[in-house]
Amino acid sequence: MTPDAGGRFFEDFTLGERITHATPRTLESGDIALYQALYGGRHILNSSLPAAQAAGYVSRPLENWLVFHIVFGKTVPDISRNAIANLGYAEGRFLAPVYCGDTVSAASEVMGLRENSNGKSGIVMVRSRGFNQHQEMIVEYTRWVMVNKRDPSASAPDPSMPQLAAAVAPADLVPPPEGISTLDSAQSGSDKYFDDYETGLFIDHHDGVTLEDSEHMLATRAYQNTARVHFDGLAQQETRFGKRLIYGGHIISHARAMSFNGLENAVCVAGLNAGTHAAPAFAGDTIYAGTRIMDKASIVGVESVGALRLRHFVTKNKPVGDIAELVSNQETETRPDDLLLDLDCWVWMARR
Amino acid sequence: MTPDAGGRFFEDFTLGERITHATPRTLESGDIALYQALYGGRHILNSSLPAAQAAGYVSRPLENWLVFHIVFGKTVPDISRNAIANLGYAEGRFLAPVYCGDTVSAASEVMGLRENSNGKSGIVMVRSRGFNQHQEMIVEYTRWVMVNKRDPSASAPDPSMPQLAAAVAPADLVPPPEGISTLDSAQSGSDKYFDDYETGLFIDHHDGVTLEDSEHMLATRAYQNTARVHFDGLAQQETRFGKRLIYGGHIISHARAMSFNGLENAVCVAGLNAGTHAAPAFAGDTIYAGTRIMDKASIVGVESVGALRLRHFVTKNKPVGDIAELVSNQETETRPDDLLLDLDCWVWMARR
Amino acid sequence: MTPDAGGRFFEDFTLGERITHATPRTLESGDIALYQALYGGRHILNSSLPAAQAAGYVSRPLENWLVFHIVFGKTVPDISRNAIANLGYAEGRFLAPVYCGDTVSAASEVMGLRENSNGKSGIVMVRSRGFNQHQEMIVEYTRWVMVNKRDPSASAPDPSMPQLAAAVAPADLVPPPEGISTLDSAQSGSDKYFDDYETGLFIDHHDGVTLEDSEHMLATRAYQNTARVHFDGLAQQETRFGKRLIYGGHIISHARAMSFNGLENAVCVAGLNAGTHAAPAFAGDTIYAGTRIMDKASIVGVESVGALRLRHFVTKNKPVGDIAELVSNQETETRPDDLLLDLDCWVWMARR
Repeated sequence: MTPDAGGRFFEDFTLGERITHATPRTLESGDIALYQALYGGRHILNSSLPAAQAAGYVSRPLENWLVFHIVFGKTVPDISRNAIANLGYAEGRFLAPVYCGDTVSAASEVMGLRENSNGKSGIVMVRSRGFNQHQEMIVEYTRWVMVNKRDPSASAPDPSMPQLAAAVAPADLVPPPEGISTLDSAQSGSDKYFDDYETGLFIDHHDGVTLEDSEHMLATRAYQNTARVHFDGLAQQETRFGKRLIYGGHIISHARAMSFNGLENAVCVAGLNAGTHAAPAFAGDTIYAGTRIMDKASIVGVESVGALRLRHFVTKNKPVGDIAELVSNQETETRPDDLLLDLDCWVWMARR
Repeated sequence: MTPDAGGRFFEDFTLGERITHATPRTLESGDIALYQALYGGRHILNSSLPAAQAAGYVSRPLENWLVFHIVFGKTVPDISRNAIANLGYAEGRFLAPVYCGDTVSAASEVMGLRENSNGKSGIVMVRSRGFNQHQEMIVEYTRWVMVNKRDPSASAPDPSMPQLAAAVAPADLVPPPEGISTLDSAQSGSDKYFDDYETGLFIDHHDGVTLEDSEHMLATRAYQNTARVHFDGLAQQETRFGKRLIYGGHIISHARAMSFNGLENAVCVAGLNAGTHAAPAFAGDTIYAGTRIMDKASIVGVESVGALRLRHFVTKNKPVGDIAELVSNQETETRPDDLLLDLDCWVWMARR
Repeated sequence: MTPDAGGRFFEDFTLGERITHATPRTLESGDIALYQALYGGRHILNSSLPAAQAAGYVSRPLENWLVFHIVFGKTVPDISRNAIANLGYAEGRFLAPVYCGDTVSAASEVMGLRENSNGKSGIVMVRSRGFNQHQEMIVEYTRWVMVNKRDPSASAPDPSMPQLAAAVAPADLVPPPEGISTLDSAQSGSDKYFDDYETGLFIDHHDGVTLEDSEHMLATRAYQNTARVHFDGLAQQETRFGKRLIYGGHIISHARAMSFNGLENAVCVAGLNAGTHAAPAFAGDTIYAGTRIMDKASIVGVESVGALRLRHFVTKNKPVGDIAELVSNQETETRPDDLLLDLDCWVWMARR
């Protein structure tokens, strides 16, 4: 009855299977404070209760990526404990605000399976959904990972992999309350709004942050994410990395916080179109972020915000400005060696 | 009036003396979040408010070891600031749940004193008790420490040391609410319950965690534990250790969190029978945990849980599986060099 | 429209200008817990809700320096992002308690401007004020910083620098509720009160703490302080320091927490007379603190507390006792090389 090292291997997944993840987690003001200390965000809806209430929220909403990481963390023991690589995200949407006191649970559905040609591993694609204690869906996204087979000789199911949208359609995004229009520009940090941003613009967010082992571990444990590569420095010495890998979501949260400089009124995250952790991040790396405006969309019937499609780039040990030329070239898929994260998402930008 | 370096020496203790410790501490949701980030626990009663309420708790109970460390921390300035070694624990019981908003205070009684034969130090045994703001006792335990004498020539009291029970009797443990039986196995993380565990079973919890100075210091300050060996890296350079010692309770909390893998439905800690910090832990060490089931007991009139007596083993820089043979041999007291913690405790395991 | 690296230069300030700072920040119990873990304070009003309520507070007040750092952090993007040095503080007062749930905002007024003789930089003096969500002023202080000019050839305003008081007059300090007199000495940690302290006394607080990069960054991000020198280890390699500088306020908070040993009943901070960050602090430094009683004042009509004027000294890598002779000599302004912080403040000391 002793458990094995835990987690499913490729042959343990069945197409269409639905998996309920343990353990529901109640989020409270302490989680806000810790997230604040980890990333230093300054977006007004997450920082100020009166501003959030004036905007029409019941209370101060938790950061979208915090909610995402909590849901993601729950999926790890079932989905990616034996993953070799986290390959991509798509079709992500934030559907409802999460407040202090809410309890988040998660479930996933196996959407795609395809054995790799080497017979030793395969791709598992899941659609993961987070719920609050009222069983309302708060976030959903698709991700796919490469998972080892336990037994290379095990037979594999017929390959099946759904086609994914290149981006969430703006009309499918869930807008925030209309009270966003009441935000004060002196308090939010900028008088730049939706109409001030042009597609194609590249913004260098300028700040650099050196990463620490204790910080990414605190974060990853707060998310109840149990992937061993983040914690076991001794076992990592035996790998090609030689040290603990930082959870990719930790970099996403830094990117969001850093993007405040120049995108102050991007009041919340709306959707996740695609994301690539292009290189591993380690303690001691210093990261920088820049963002390119990829698209913008007004939503019929929504006055207070418009949707901006952003591509966040995070570099390591080289200011993002140095590679801006490369990363802002939408046509090429070339990724400079120094690129750590390439994240394509929708945000809600306040308008006046 | 300038205070000396603080803390009592062996000759400052009197048999039977009662000591009220400063400072009462109100615990709130922020303490839950920090503890979560430090250890990454996933046991459902501490993680989910709805699950805790369904089980019959008023609110989400704080982790037992968090409460223990808070009480322990209060005793340090009075009991162990000049301790050379923390020698043992016994007769510990968790008596009532602690919730957010509760204020914990602590008091100790000197139960035993015995000068060492070298005349330079002695053993001090205390019974420490934690209380909430209603003066209800929430935890009690006995511990004994070796304390320096200020003056080797000071006379010592007649040696007196009480006999301690090898283990708390199961009938003396305080069970959780009967609603534990409502827990959902998909949400709690396992469908293994009390009847699935046999005495003698050894469970390797598999995960490894590399320790960090900033993490153990954050923890130890959260517990208001002022023992200087944990904080003053410069002074530690002059000792045989050469670096900051990690508070032993930090390892206990890691052991509890790591023991989730294989003991998911061990919903809370019930008692502390014995504990040895067999070796010092330092930042950079990677720890692993395994647990042996030592005994099990059904309690008359209690349907939803049974008591499991566990022996948690924590190793450093060597997977616990490598020494399982040794540590699972109950008859020998041999402790491998790599053993960090040997903790004998009772937990409440859900039953079906 | 891409923002530049951000922040004002010397020529961007105008005498008398009023600046509203972004972003308001709601403080909650999570912030208390994190602050506790960072500094380990044990002063009873901040630690115990029942004690705070018995003293006459509505709830448990947040630590004064936490509130100060939150206000300070808001001023950084506007005032000191391009500062070369943080030169001094004066005329600081804590005016009203801040509780969980309160939202802090900040504004500053430019009080003085003086170009340096080299024409490349200048001194900017601001009066900064923090407010709660009811627009009540909770803290105010003056600080002056040296700020680079963007363009050395830019013309400078006529020099104007107000005269500052050497110390806040005791009668201008805002006393805590009279219920302070109900504090229990066993619970507060000491039976030493106002009448037990003599002007001139030097107290060595004894504890040493080794500083960590992850801790000062967690703190500084919690304060939403965006000064890059604290975070960007790579850019700091190009400076004369070679590594991340620790926010001076982090040292102030450690000093307050360390000062518990010997000043247990100094229940809260009342005012800030002067402060010098005499040397930079880096991760790996071990700090020690000592305090000299500079003055004491009884306030007409206030029974439960008296004002103690303290000078906190923090040394690095050398126990403060070793330099006590020097630092306690009020007549000389000599500062030993090992001195990190010299902070002149008023505290409220309970009386019996």
